[in-house]
Amino acid sequence: MSFANTTTLPLATFKPNHFQLEVSDKVATVTLNRPEKKNPLTFASYRELTDFFLAAQKDEAIAAIVVTGAGGNFSSGGDVFEIIGPLVAMETKELLKFTRMTGELVKAIRACPQPVIAAIDGICAGAGAIVAMASDIRLGTAESKIAFLFNRVGLAGCDMGACAMLPRIIGQGRAAELLYTGRVLRGEEAERWGFLNRLVAKDALIGEAQTLASELANGPTFANAMTKRMLEMEWAMSVESAIEAEAVAQALCMQTEDFARAYRAFAAKKQPVFEGN
Amino acid sequence: MSFANTTTLPLATFKPNHFQLEVSDKVATVTLNRPEKKNPLTFASYRELTDFFLAAQKDEAIAAIVVTGAGGNFSSGGDVFEIIGPLVAMETKELLKFTRMTGELVKAIRACPQPVIAAIDGICAGAGAIVAMASDIRLGTAESKIAFLFNRVGLAGCDMGACAMLPRIIGQGRAAELLYTGRVLRGEEAERWGFLNRLVAKDALIGEAQTLASELANGPTFANAMTKRMLEMEWAMSVESAIEAEAVAQALCMQTEDFARAYRAFAAKKQPVFEGN
Amino acid sequence: MSFANTTTLPLATFKPNHFQLEVSDKVATVTLNRPEKKNPLTFASYRELTDFFLAAQKDEAIAAIVVTGAGGNFSSGGDVFEIIGPLVAMETKELLKFTRMTGELVKAIRACPQPVIAAIDGICAGAGAIVAMASDIRLGTAESKIAFLFNRVGLAGCDMGACAMLPRIIGQGRAAELLYTGRVLRGEEAERWGFLNRLVAKDALIGEAQTLASELANGPTFANAMTKRMLEMEWAMSVESAIEAEAVAQALCMQTEDFARAYRAFAAKKQPVFEGN
Repeated sequence: MSFANTTTLPLATFKPNHFQLEVSDKVATVTLNRPEKKNPLTFASYRELTDFFLAAQKDEAIAAIVVTGAGGNFSSGGDVFEIIGPLVAMETKELLKFTRMTGELVKAIRACPQPVIAAIDGICAGAGAIVAMASDIRLGTAESKIAFLFNRVGLAGCDMGACAMLPRIIGQGRAAELLYTGRVLRGEEAERWGFLNRLVAKDALIGEAQTLASELANGPTFANAMTKRMLEMEWAMSVESAIEAEAVAQALCMQTEDFARAYRAFAAKKQPVFEGN
Repeated sequence: MSFANTTTLPLATFKPNHFQLEVSDKVATVTLNRPEKKNPLTFASYRELTDFFLAAQKDEAIAAIVVTGAGGNFSSGGDVFEIIGPLVAMETKELLKFTRMTGELVKAIRACPQPVIAAIDGICAGAGAIVAMASDIRLGTAESKIAFLFNRVGLAGCDMGACAMLPRIIGQGRAAELLYTGRVLRGEEAERWGFLNRLVAKDALIGEAQTLASELANGPTFANAMTKRMLEMEWAMSVESAIEAEAVAQALCMQTEDFARAYRAFAAKKQPVFEGN
Repeated sequence: MSFANTTTLPLATFKPNHFQLEVSDKVATVTLNRPEKKNPLTFASYRELTDFFLAAQKDEAIAAIVVTGAGGNFSSGGDVFEIIGPLVAMETKELLKFTRMTGELVKAIRACPQPVIAAIDGICAGAGAIVAMASDIRLGTAESKIAFLFNRVGLAGCDMGACAMLPRIIGQGRAAELLYTGRVLRGEEAERWGFLNRLVAKDALIGEAQTLASELANGPTFANAMTKRMLEMEWAMSVESAIEAEAVAQALCMQTEDFARAYRAFAAKKQPVFEGN
């Protein structure tokens, strides 16, 4: 069917200027790629990343996304001279345009049906930590240094959804500490707290992230997209409403061919081959 | 008083066909009991378990419930040939009837005033993992193998409330991983993540679960039922509203005899004997 | 500006009868100070603590608050003879006045813009555990003994917001266990579960809490107060709404001088000196 994506170009034609994009099989890998500055975000890269995730929402050829950084760091966040400097001089209306634009990036990551896997090494700070937080699964290394350092630049921890999302990942007390102090959370502690799903050796990081992405991409992607949507929506529901919403969603998934494929494969003692429909 | 339970038979007369039921003192123990197939759920056992928990809601003679499995496994979940096969052939309306029926089991577990303690060893998969998740407290062994394996059969992780409840127990990042991958969570990791409250030796499992159930059954059960209800309801409230709701609920509990019994026992330097009113 | 605090005396003139108050630089330290009874709460001390936190909401001279207990214990909670005894004899209307008054203490702690740091050693029980839970950050010792022991006195765990707040800090399964059993959570386990942010040696406890408070007090306090407010409000929002709410809040913080101060300091390769505006 094409009615849903006629207005958007497929990702295959997406030629980013501000990050590196590789598509292999059904996995897109986004590499923040300005290693000499530890892969900062700029006005232009924010916009381009958002456009990428918005386009991904319509591109059925991409089934999973990996986000990582070049040169041993994930991202240092908003660049001091390219972002903070101009913001200091902006008026109210322009500032709100900026903060909404950054929030749009998080909304685009959360709304794309593909699972997003962050592969984190080295510095993962400010808006970089937010991109990691907004991902679905996070792999990291012992050398990961995650810092929600907004208060270090005079700002609030409530940036791009952090006060909503971080407590849901690591709990309210630990989230409060990180957002109040801006302190660095290192790999081992981040895994212990549930921010990182798993620690991986530096050299194996991107490989393991892509392998996991590939496994998910070859899974029942229609159903997995429903999982992502419901994980998002159900924080704002009572448990009773959530159970009813899931009954409807799962009844829909039971009508996909992937469900029948899994049953037939099981009956034939084979591995199912899912097609995402 | 009997006005609340005139239409339901007491559990003492409940003769299940699809699980084993023992009532000792005020503790009911439900044992999924088809060990040669690792205690799967079927259409009939779903219905019967739901009826049991609905009946438990009205039976004041039962003050705590233990759920476990026979033969070294908790439950393998929905049986492939007895449940998945028929579902593949069903039409929309029937599918929704099924998913709502499974959700009803979780609602019945959550709504019964008794605390439900899952005693988990071996396989605890699919709908079995959901029953464990819907319990109030989970004891397990190092050999526990918990798997929300819906995506392995082509379905979404949003089954029977999992996308609402699992993140509230283990955090959003870890829940996403389990629901996306269907991977096995073993006992030690499950304890570390807070899914299991405690690891117990295999031989001691059912005994420790029943001892804990008995302690709760001999506690202030009116008040404990209020704790369960509020733990459920307050996820959908602001913290401010929750504080007001608790002020009202606790003022009610302060008018029970159990509160006075505790005070008199304390003043007399004795252990209180609670009666649940 | 003074329009916001004309009706309240500044904390400098606050002379508490039921706890010890020290103000040093911008940090207020509240010490529950009846060590021979392990610092219990009484009707009068509840009221006075609430008045203190309400006054703190208006006092811009105080930028962070430490709460601790004298004599090696935090607090034993509501005194059996001074609180529980009278409650047993009270009628409905008076009981609700009492439970609302206790809830008001928690609301006052949550609503004051200053971060509240609990420094916990020894017994931290009942309403004492609630005060710790209602704080933003918790430091403790290996000897900390935290117990939500309401059910031991015949009451529900839903006291002063516990069924809302505790699961958000340590997860639903662990919160259920603590509230159902009233069991003691010791320092090491409390850190592992995320109730305590950090374990500190007994002798270093108050010093480390005050150092952290001082660091926060010298941070961008306008922005940090926004962090606290949003951490509170966003549990009752969808993630989408939270992102929009944060866009507005952060745009406001970007217009504070503290944001410009941080930028200028960074450009000059100096440490920023924040002034909270």
